[in-house]
Parts: sequence; structure tokens; C-alpha cells
Amino acid sequence: MQSIRLRMILGVSAAALIASSAGAAPTIGFTPKSAAAEAQAEATFDKNLSADEIRARLKLMASEVNNVGSPHDKANAEYTLQQFKAWGWDAHIEVFNVLYPTPKKELLEITGAEPFQATLTEKPVAGDETSAKTATELPAYLAFQGDGDVTAPLVYVNYGMPADYEALARMGVDVKGKIVIVRYGGGWRGLKPKLAQEHGAVGCIIYSDPADDGYGDAPTYPEGPSRPPQGIQRGSVLDMPIEAGDPLTPGYGATKDAKRIRREDSALIMKIPALPIGYGDAQHFLATLTGPVAPKGWRGQLPMTYRVGPSTTPVHLVVESDWSLKPLYDVIAVMRGAQAPDEWVIRANHRDGWVFGAFDPLAGNTAMMEEAKAIGVLAKTGWKPRRTIVYASWDGEEPGLIGSTEWAETHADELSKKAVVYINSDTNGHGFLNADASYSTSALINEVAGDVRDPETGVSVKTRVLAALQAEAAAPDASPPLRARAKIAAGGLVPLGDMGSGSDYTPFVQHLGITSIDIAYGGEADQGGVYHSAYDTFEHYDRFGDPGFVYGVAMAQTVGRLVLRSADAEVVPFRFGNLAGTVGGEVGELKALTGRMREQTDNTNRLLDAKAFDLAADPGKPTAPPPRYAAVPALDFAPLDGAVTRLTASATAYDDAAAAAGDLSPAKRAKLNALLGSVEHSLTDQRGLPGRPWYHHLIYAPGVLTGYGAKTLPGVREAIEGRRWAEAGEFIGRTADVLKACADKLDAATALLKS
Amino acid sequence: MQSIRLRMILGVSAAALIASSAGAAPTIGFTPKSAAAEAQAEATFDKNLSADEIRARLKLMASEVNNVGSPHDKANAEYTLQQFKAWGWDAHIEVFNVLYPTPKKELLEITGAEPFQATLTEKPVAGDETSAKTATELPAYLAFQGDGDVTAPLVYVNYGMPADYEALARMGVDVKGKIVIVRYGGGWRGLKPKLAQEHGAVGCIIYSDPADDGYGDAPTYPEGPSRPPQGIQRGSVLDMPIEAGDPLTPGYGATKDAKRIRREDSALIMKIPALPIGYGDAQHFLATLTGPVAPKGWRGQLPMTYRVGPSTTPVHLVVESDWSLKPLYDVIAVMRGAQAPDEWVIRANHRDGWVFGAFDPLAGNTAMMEEAKAIGVLAKTGWKPRRTIVYASWDGEEPGLIGSTEWAETHADELSKKAVVYINSDTNGHGFLNADASYSTSALINEVAGDVRDPETGVSVKTRVLAALQAEAAAPDASPPLRARAKIAAGGLVPLGDMGSGSDYTPFVQHLGITSIDIAYGGEADQGGVYHSAYDTFEHYDRFGDPGFVYGVAMAQTVGRLVLRSADAEVVPFRFGNLAGTVGGEVGELKALTGRMREQTDNTNRLLDAKAFDLAADPGKPTAPPPRYAAVPALDFAPLDGAVTRLTASATAYDDAAAAAGDLSPAKRAKLNALLGSVEHSLTDQRGLPGRPWYHHLIYAPGVLTGYGAKTLPGVREAIEGRRWAEAGEFIGRTADVLKACADKLDAATALLKS
Repeated sequence: MQSIRLRMILGVSAAALIASSAGAAPTIGFTPKSAAAEAQAEATFDKNLSADEIRARLKLMASEVNNVGSPHDKANAEYTLQQFKAWGWDAHIEVFNVLYPTPKKELLEITGAEPFQATLTEKPVAGDETSAKTATELPAYLAFQGDGDVTAPLVYVNYGMPADYEALARMGVDVKGKIVIVRYGGGWRGLKPKLAQEHGAVGCIIYSDPADDGYGDAPTYPEGPSRPPQGIQRGSVLDMPIEAGDPLTPGYGATKDAKRIRREDSALIMKIPALPIGYGDAQHFLATLTGPVAPKGWRGQLPMTYRVGPSTTPVHLVVESDWSLKPLYDVIAVMRGAQAPDEWVIRANHRDGWVFGAFDPLAGNTAMMEEAKAIGVLAKTGWKPRRTIVYASWDGEEPGLIGSTEWAETHADELSKKAVVYINSDTNGHGFLNADASYSTSALINEVAGDVRDPETGVSVKTRVLAALQAEAAAPDASPPLRARAKIAAGGLVPLGDMGSGSDYTPFVQHLGITSIDIAYGGEADQGGVYHSAYDTFEHYDRFGDPGFVYGVAMAQTVGRLVLRSADAEVVPFRFGNLAGTVGGEVGELKALTGRMREQTDNTNRLLDAKAFDLAADPGKPTAPPPRYAAVPALDFAPLDGAVTRLTASATAYDDAAAAAGDLSPAKRAKLNALLGSVEHSLTDQRGLPGRPWYHHLIYAPGVLTGYGAKTLPGVREAIEGRRWAEAGEFIGRTADVLKACADKLDAATALLKS
Repeated sequence: MQSIRLRMILGVSAAALIASSAGAAPTIGFTPKSAAAEAQAEATFDKNLSADEIRARLKLMASEVNNVGSPHDKANAEYTLQQFKAWGWDAHIEVFNVLYPTPKKELLEITGAEPFQATLTEKPVAGDETSAKTATELPAYLAFQGDGDVTAPLVYVNYGMPADYEALARMGVDVKGKIVIVRYGGGWRGLKPKLAQEHGAVGCIIYSDPADDGYGDAPTYPEGPSRPPQGIQRGSVLDMPIEAGDPLTPGYGATKDAKRIRREDSALIMKIPALPIGYGDAQHFLATLTGPVAPKGWRGQLPMTYRVGPSTTPVHLVVESDWSLKPLYDVIAVMRGAQAPDEWVIRANHRDGWVFGAFDPLAGNTAMMEEAKAIGVLAKTGWKPRRTIVYASWDGEEPGLIGSTEWAETHADELSKKAVVYINSDTNGHGFLNADASYSTSALINEVAGDVRDPETGVSVKTRVLAALQAEAAAPDASPPLRARAKIAAGGLVPLGDMGSGSDYTPFVQHLGITSIDIAYGGEADQGGVYHSAYDTFEHYDRFGDPGFVYGVAMAQTVGRLVLRSADAEVVPFRFGNLAGTVGGEVGELKALTGRMREQTDNTNRLLDAKAFDLAADPGKPTAPPPRYAAVPALDFAPLDGAVTRLTASATAYDDAAAAAGDLSPAKRAKLNALLGSVEHSLTDQRGLPGRPWYHHLIYAPGVLTGYGAKTLPGVREAIEGRRWAEAGEFIGRTADVLKACADKLDAATALLKS
């Protein structure tokens, strides 16, 4: 049921929001003739998408517990296989055997005179039948925590990020030998036990504060969508920013006979026990804390004075896991390309969840299956893709992007040769289009976004997201990043998000250097409140996630077009002006960051010399001065400036030549497409990033200290942030080198076009 | 007991924080000879200050309920009179008869199936004997609310400021015919019922949210200093930003036989009933609300989902007051000047509280009395002030700065001729020096601040506050206003706060144009949590306000020096470079503000044309677009630019000439001092500010929409903020005129010095 409420409000004036007008026929990479055929194929594709079928599929697939190793996760693999086959795909299941720990014993309690024991399970909720299937649910658990039996005082460390430990040190509290209690938010989950153990903690409890994730946001489930007091966010704490995938088979596929390292030799597994809890239980633990009152930014919405600790009463934490190998079932479906079978367009979503996984990941997975179904119908009409299309349903994403990574590592050589683009999705919900993607796909994504109608407003999803970005940034207190995105939107372009991590594109883009796209709708969906809990059910999703499943259809239309156009375009549909411009902007950011750090360092050191922090401190609430850092040296950005100038010229030349190009000979086209398919790879360096050689990409990576959040130009940026100035200089050079290699590729492509 | 902990840490390097070195002998306005005598007098003065006596005096004066009209408020007046007399002052009590409403009947209840009645009184607290004296306490009350008996649905309006009503309108909720519930904070109390009634509300409940004022900040009393659930903030809601003082005698003294207007003819009294409550009760009222979930910035720290409303259950609110006149007792103590008896230095603090009033106002009042005592001792040694010193203990500050205003209005003619400076204090506590003051007193205040030792660190209070301002602003996320103050501090100057309102300086500086100073120590004291409640007791203050009463002594040393130097300096100790520089900076701010508003208006209108706000809205949570405003026209700031240039030259010339001047003849000195005493008056315009002719000052005023918070260049700034462009232009001219009149005064003073 698609609303046309706003179509009437809108009239023609909405066109003012977008620089280019929307049209149904693709242009990038197509000739006029092939474009017309493509438009017709897409119309047929659209006609075969059904919200009702997505809904029925979600209901079925989310009907039982779906974590790795569960019977229903395997049943879903077999169902998916059977469906793909029925739709005309050449499908099979590929099995990997990977380390996947599950809890054997768990205990979390307050000792002493007023003992309290945490629940660690989630009771059923009225009106949600699925939530009553508690028998096979995984209890509170963090995969790849460290196991142990520890008893120690508790310390509250806010979000548990580096700045929080700096503040803690200034308050004179340390976590050595303590158990930390940390709230979700502020950075990726896995950094919380990692930074805790690096600071000497012996255990870690992660809880959802109602200010961030509970009644603060909205009424709690089942009255509303938010996390109830007993709701628990499970998750992985594998050190994915260092390397993704099975920790026992680093850098290669976890096939049956692969050589495995010993578990104790993996640096990716935490050393201390950790458990997640809900805020209903957390309140009891936080109430044991004494010591300094928590600073303003550390306070949540529990009805209490947040204190830092330590507690006088010790807390007892026990986790013991089954560390055996478990099978993963990746379902792979192939439709062979008619003209270019060795150029692959890969499209995937994961299938495993933490519990039932309706929103995460089955909302995305069921929309993807709808695409595969509609492409199957299309193929029965006689249409054939130019390139080979590969659909994949990954297992084992939740514990560490394992199903995708093991497949990518197993087929690395073939993928490096054949993969043109990897298109991912994961969760989905009603709201606005979001695309995190390789910069070279901006033109393609914008073209597609202009051709898909938003179900709630009737305008294109592009027009709507441009409106939303600008409306949000129109508030007088909008943040600088919001304003920056709104400025791009005001110029008529959907701004791309940078590729960090948190879903299956990571092995493809950051390890193998394959051009990648990650698509999601959201921003209105109230799904965060059941994230990774037993309440992420079909019932919840049906009410709050995507009522009517219209954004399931929008997702299929959007990604279906990205897949079809990538598969059918005569010339691979990438443009590079956005790459050069974005990287140029990032170099400017790094210069500004270095300047700000220099100024702050000098100012802080001047104040340290003058004992200003000692004088400012309240003797009743003692605080130590901040640390002293060496002055920030001059950094030579000239190599990056030069490389950006070079890349800008090469990108402009290619984009102009591509726009002007006529029909190409098949041989020339094959050569050109091979070049275009390898441009992203030229942005990688096989030596990798500092301390994490598996991450090859020098333009985007998950941050070592953000986890999911991207760091752009990561080699340089993280060195600057960490004040490792020699390393920053080295990576200025390396990053300039990959930009020049990229320019070389583009120059070769331009020369080919003009020859 | 003064700590020397940090003196040792500090060594000599702290000198790096201050541009000028501290010394005990004053320089501004003194000759070397008179400076030496002054230093000696101050040393004697210091010797006679006693923390123990301040403590004993506070214990006595705060031992019973002290609101206007209470027996103990009168007893304290008589005690003060007797003390002043005993210390050698020529003292008397001046009585005014003013409108001061007190509650006769109060009721606040939730009706319907689950009724609840608010408590409206504060129960005693263990360990605080004073808090047990509940018999004579004023219950929950807001003086000058509008009386009434109303039953209506409830709507939550956050802080109840203009931006909150704009957000409410966009959420599609209005308050017409409703009772609003509003939290303390975000702007002055009195604006809350005023804006509520302007938007059509029929009643107003103000509560203290624990996030701002309760367990959020610290453990609650008696465990810690914060407001307990039953703690109530009383206060006045008289429309003081329009006019201060007795509403029945506008602009003239409320003497016995003064002609009084009818109560219903006063525009300063609210029209709707209003009551304050604690958060323990507020939670019940907030829980009745349905409708949209409150936006992020509207949520406090109660354990619930904050919703906007309206409630389905009506709320019943009754307030009935005794509107009879009550007597005010101002105590006035005079020490006649030996050389210039018609030049007055006035020093005051109010004496009335809402309940016991230990922190507000008796902490300041008892320190002021200690000064008067020490000056009395000094006078017995043969020292005589050059000018006349007037000490005043005001009554009736809490309901509306009434005791000070009526005295100032009664003696307006004499004060306009004779007053050189008015020096105020109010609350006090441990921490850092704060001075809100006329810009011409910056040099004097800085000199004094360099000569008073901070009890907690042993450095000067100037060195300490410069350190604190810079240390606070060294955080990477410090706000622009913090950074601006730190920049002034880094230059070696204690930045002055702008004079808004909230204490008794308002009638002197903003109505009469008398140079004024308001001094307080604080920032470490945890007194906010009992503000205007029955827990603002001696017991609380002794534990949390100023343990050891060392900042009572610091206050007396600081203000005592300001009084003595102002009274003894041969030449009135003002400098004007800071005035010209500060006003110049403010003109720059106004230009930037106008530019930002222009850009935002154009951008919002462009997005309105494109229906961007409609498109961005979640159909499930409808929000209306923001209002459309006319484009911001060009404003001609040239008259202000010219006036600032002129004033800068005149100020520099005077400051240079004053620094270079030798001994002056008595006649010349008298003329010069008369000129200097009238410079502040040249910054006023007798036509007053738009809509509030009582406010004459064109450089600083309380904001019509901030209440206590100052607006600088208020005629221009508030016109710009309100988009009244013709008015802005008019006040650019008027403000430029007063700056030129000020420059004329300074030129005359310079000519006199050089003649």
C-alpha cells in the first residue's frame, strides 16, 4: 500500500531540490538502444515484486531461533537453496567450519549482604508469540569474549571509549583488577572489553541505558518499540577492526581441511569474560558504586545518581563457553552472463541472526530473495544478463562477518579477477535511503535513487532523502557533519556514507579491493530497541519496522536496479569525479585536524606549565591534569596534494571521455571493463594498514578505535590521531602512491576510449 | 582554615598565567602616597575579618523563616540595625509598603479514575534541625502568579521558552485551554507562566527535573547536596524584565502615602494560576501525558518516556492569594566622607529569603556585615573615607527586587547626583570569583582580584579564576562562549559577566545609570540543589556551601577592597578601554548574527518552497514545517561602527591621560570625579527600551526572553532577534548616540586632566 499523500502537496516545486531530473531509463554505461531495453527489463522486474511475499517469507524465516549452528538457520539455508533453484538460478550451499563459541555456563551477581543475581534471559512479551519460544534462545552472550570466573569491585566507565578512560584517569579512578560496567553506544561493542582489558580490567559488563536504548526514546515493547528493561543486546566482540572472519583461519578460507591456528594464538579473541545485560538488572549493579559522581556526559536516564566507583561490594562474573567448530552454510546462486561471464556482479545479505533476527538480518535478506525471484521471472522472458550475477545468502555474519569472509578468502583469486562490484544489504526499515559505498559508484547510485519511488511520499527516494538531509540541517544547532552532508544534498547529490564495517562488504572492499555498495532504508523505523534481542521478531517488525512491507519492495527495486544496471551496462557504470573530489576534501580535513591538534597541544602544555589544571581543580573533588604530549611537528602533505591534483585531472578526463564515447568494439569494451573493474583495487596496498595487514584499502577502513565507524585515509588519519608522526608521514607517501596508481588506471581507460 | 596545598605545587611558574603581577598597594586613582595609606588601611581591615563570626551570624540569621512579612525577617532588620550602630555607622531602617502576595489556598491534583494530589510542602530531613521548623514555612508558591481555579488537560512544554513553543507547534500540539507543565531551567522562571499565558494556557506547573536539579547532579539531601524529590523551588514570576519593584508604584517609591495603581492595572502580574512542585510529585503528572514522544532535548532523568501530551485526564489547579500590602524593612548605614561627602559608594546585599535563606541571601549578607564591622573598626583607628560609604541590607528582593528598587526610586534624584558606584552581592559559596559589572570597572576589579588570596589554593583569586577559565576551555569540545572568555583570561584579565538581572543592581545600573558591580564566589559550592527550598538551611550551607566559611572572608576581602578603594581613591578608579573594546566586539557579534539569520532564512524559505520539510516528515509522527519569515534586509551598522571608533579613541586618550596624571587641585579633582561618576549615565536613554521604558541602559539589560540572562546592546539585539528591522535601525541610531555622549564625557575628562 503506497501512500500518495505528499505527491499532491508537492506539485512541481520539489524539482527545485534536485539538480538533475529523474527518468526511468539508465544512462551511465548504456547506449540509447541498450538503455531502452534495460528500462523495459526493469519494468518487468518491478511488476514481479510483492510486499505480501516478502512479508510471508519474513514470517516463515523468522519463526524460529536463527543463530549460527541452530537447526533453523540450516533449515533456512535449505529453504533459500530450494527457492533460488525454483526461480531458475544455479544454486548450491558452500559449507565452512569455523570457531563459533556458545555459552555453557554464565553467572553475574552482586555478592555481600544484599546479593543480587542478574537474569541473563529475556522473558516473553504479551502479544508476541515468537518471543515465547525461549527454549532454544541464546541467553545473554558476547561471542569471542574471554571466559573466566572473576570476583572484583565494579567501576563505571561510561561508553568505555578512549576519552572515557582519560577522564577516569583524571578523576583518579583506575580499572586495574576491577570489573567494568559500560553502557552501549559511543563506539562499537567490541572495543568495550578490548579497551577494558588493555586498561587492566578483569571483566566487562555491557548494558543498554534507557537514555540511549530504552524508555528514553519511546515506550517500551510491547506498548511501543523500545527495549524493555529485561531486553539484552547480544553481539560479537571479536576484534574485527584488526581482521574479520574465522579467527582460526586468518587470511584464508575455513574449508574442511584448512590448517587452523590454536585458539590461544589468535589475537582477535578477548582475554577477559564479558556479558551484556538489560537496564533492569544494570540498575542494581550501578547502585553499588560509590566514589566520584559521574561527569555530565556519563549520565543516563536511570533514576539515580550515576557514580564512577569503585563499588565496595565485589561483583562475581562467570562465563564458560563451548569453543567447538560449527558449520556455516553460505547459499550461492549464479546466473551466467551471456556476453561477459567472467565479469561478476555479486549481491548478498546475511541470513543468521542473534535470536529470531526479523529486522537483523531477515528484513534485508527477504527483500534480496524477492529480487532473485523477480530476476528469475525476467530470465524466463528471454532476458539474459550481460555479466554473471551471483546472489549470496551469508551465514555467520553476526559473530564476525565469517560466512562472507571465508567465502571471499577461499575464492580470492577468482574474485580479484572477475568481481566488478559487490552489493550488500543487511537490516531494512521504513524511512530514507542510505548508501555507504565506494566513491566511484555515486553517479550510479544517484541515478537509481532518482528512479525509485518512495512509498510514503510518492516522490523519488532521491528527492526524499535530499529533502530530509537539508531539512535536518536547517535547524540552527545542526552539527558541522550534518551541514556538510546537506551541502552535498543541496547540490543535488545523495551523499555517500564512508565504508567502515559492521556488515559483509568488509572482506570485499577493504581486504580484496572490490568496488562495493551497502544499501539500507531506515531512519523512521523504531527497530534499534530490539536490536540483537529476543524481541527482534516478525511481530515487532510487522508493527514498527516496515508496516505494509513497502520498504522491502523499495529495497528490492533499488538494489535490483543496481544489480541489473551493473550486470547489463556495456561499460561498467562507474564515474570518478566524486572519488577525486571526496579524497581532496579528506586531505583538507587532515590538515585542519593537524592544525587543531597543534594548537590544543601548545595551549594545554602552556597551561600545564602554569599549573592551571591544579589550580582549577575543586579540592573536594580532586582531578588530575591532562597528559602532556610533545608539540605537533610540521607534516608534509605535499605528496597527497600532488596526488589529488593528478587524480582530479585523470578522473575528469575519464568521466568526460566516457560521457562522450560512442559504441565500442567488443574487444575494446572487454579491456575497458577489465580496467574499470580493477580501479578500486589500485586503492589498496598489500602491506595493509599499521597493525592490521589484512586491511588493504588506504581510502576507507573501520577505525581501530571506532569499530564500525569509518576512518577515511585511515593510514594517515589514525597515525595523526594517535600522534605517531613518522607513521603519518609514511602513510602520506603510501596513500599518495595508491592515488597515483588509480590515476594511472584511469588514464589507461581514457586512452583506450580515445584510441 | 586556609589551605596551602597548591602553593607548593605551584612555585613561580603560575605567574605565566597572568600578564600583570599582583601587589598589595592599589594604583588606579591613587597617588603613591595615598596608595601606601590605603594598603595599610586594607591590612587593618583584613585583620578584623573572622570566618567564625560570619558563621555564627549566619547560624543566627538563618535560624527561622525569613520571607517578606515574616517576624524573623523584621527581627533580622532590627538586629542588623543594632549591629551597624554598634560598629559606628549612622544607621536607620527605611520602611516601604508594597504588594506582596502570600498563598491562602492551594490545590493541585490529577482527577479521574486514579486521582493524585500534590503535596506542596517539604517534609523535614534527618540531621537538619532547621528543616523541621515547618510551621511558618511558605508552601509551594510563585509570587505574582495570577490566582484561579482551573481544570484542564496537561501539556508538557519542556523549559517553556520560545523555541519550545515553536517545536510544539511543529508537533501539532497547542496549549490553548490547557495547563502546561514545564521544567525549571533554560531561562528565567517568570517567563514560563508568561509565555504559557501568551500561548493560551490557563494554568502553569513548574517542576525541578532530576536531570537539571536533583539526583542527576549529586546524591540528594541529606545524603548529598542535591534537591530531594519533595524539594520545591519557590520564586517570583513578576514580569521583572519589563520593570522591577513594587508593581503598584511603577517608577516611584512605595512610601506610605504614595499613590498606588490598581492591581488589575499592573501588566507585571501574571494572569493565570501557577505553582511549583518537586520531581517526586511531577512524575505522577508527567505520567498522565499521551501524544508525541518528547524530542531528545526535552527529556529529563525521570524513569519514563517523556511525552508531550495532552493528557486524557484533566488536572485541577487552584491558587488563591492574600494580596494585601506588606511592610519592607531596608536597613541603611552611612559613614560620611571626609573630603567628598556628596560622592557616594553604595554597597548592599538583600536579607529576605524564600524560607530560611542561608545560601540565598544570607551567605552574602553576613559577609557584607563582616565588612561593615571591619570598616567600623578601621574608622576607630582614625581612618576616614574620602567619600561617603553607604551599606544597605535590602528587604523584598525575592518577590521582585522591591526593597532596592523602591529605595532607588525614592532617592533617584539624590542618587543621580551623588552615587559613584553601586556594589552588590547576593549568594556566596566556595569556588571561583565571578564579577558581573559595568565595563569601566574591569581594571579596578582585576587589581583587587590580584590582591586577594584564594583560600583553597593560596594563589590570588585572580590567578585561580584565570586558570579555571583556561583549563575549562582547553577541552576539545569547549563551547565558543567558553573559548571567548578563556581568550580574555589568557590575556591576563578576569572577564566580566554582562549585567542582566536577578539581583538588586538592576534599579541602580539599568534604571538610574549608576556604575555597578555584582560579586559572587562559587562554582564548587553545591547549593543549587536547595535553591529557594526549605532545605536552604545553615546546616546545608555549613556542609556544602562554604565549609569553614573561608569564602565568606574572601568575599569580604574582595568587596571590602572594592568599597575602600572606590571610597578613598583621589580620582574615581574607572578605566574605559575595556568599555570601548567590549562594545566593539558586541557590534561585531550583531553583524554576524544578522548574517547568520539572513542565510538561515533564505535556506529555510528555499526548502519551504521545495516542500522539503513535508517530505522529510515521518508520516507516523507528523511534523509541520517551520514558519516562513521575510528575507532579512540589509541593516546599516555604520552609525554604530562610527560611534565605536570615536569611543575607542576617547577611551584610550582618557586612560593614557589618567595614568600619566600627577596631583590634581581639589577643584579640578571634584570636577573630574563628578564627570567620571556620570559616565555610566551617559549610556542611558530616558525613553528606555522598546516596551519597557523603565529600562534606560542601552548597553546591558536583562533579556525580555531570557529574564536573568543579559542582552548586550539590547535595543538593537532584541529587535534583530525578533526580526523587527525598523526598530533595529532606530536603536542602532540611539545606541550610537549614547556611545557618542559617553565619548563626549571622556573627552571632557581628558581635557580637564590636560588643562
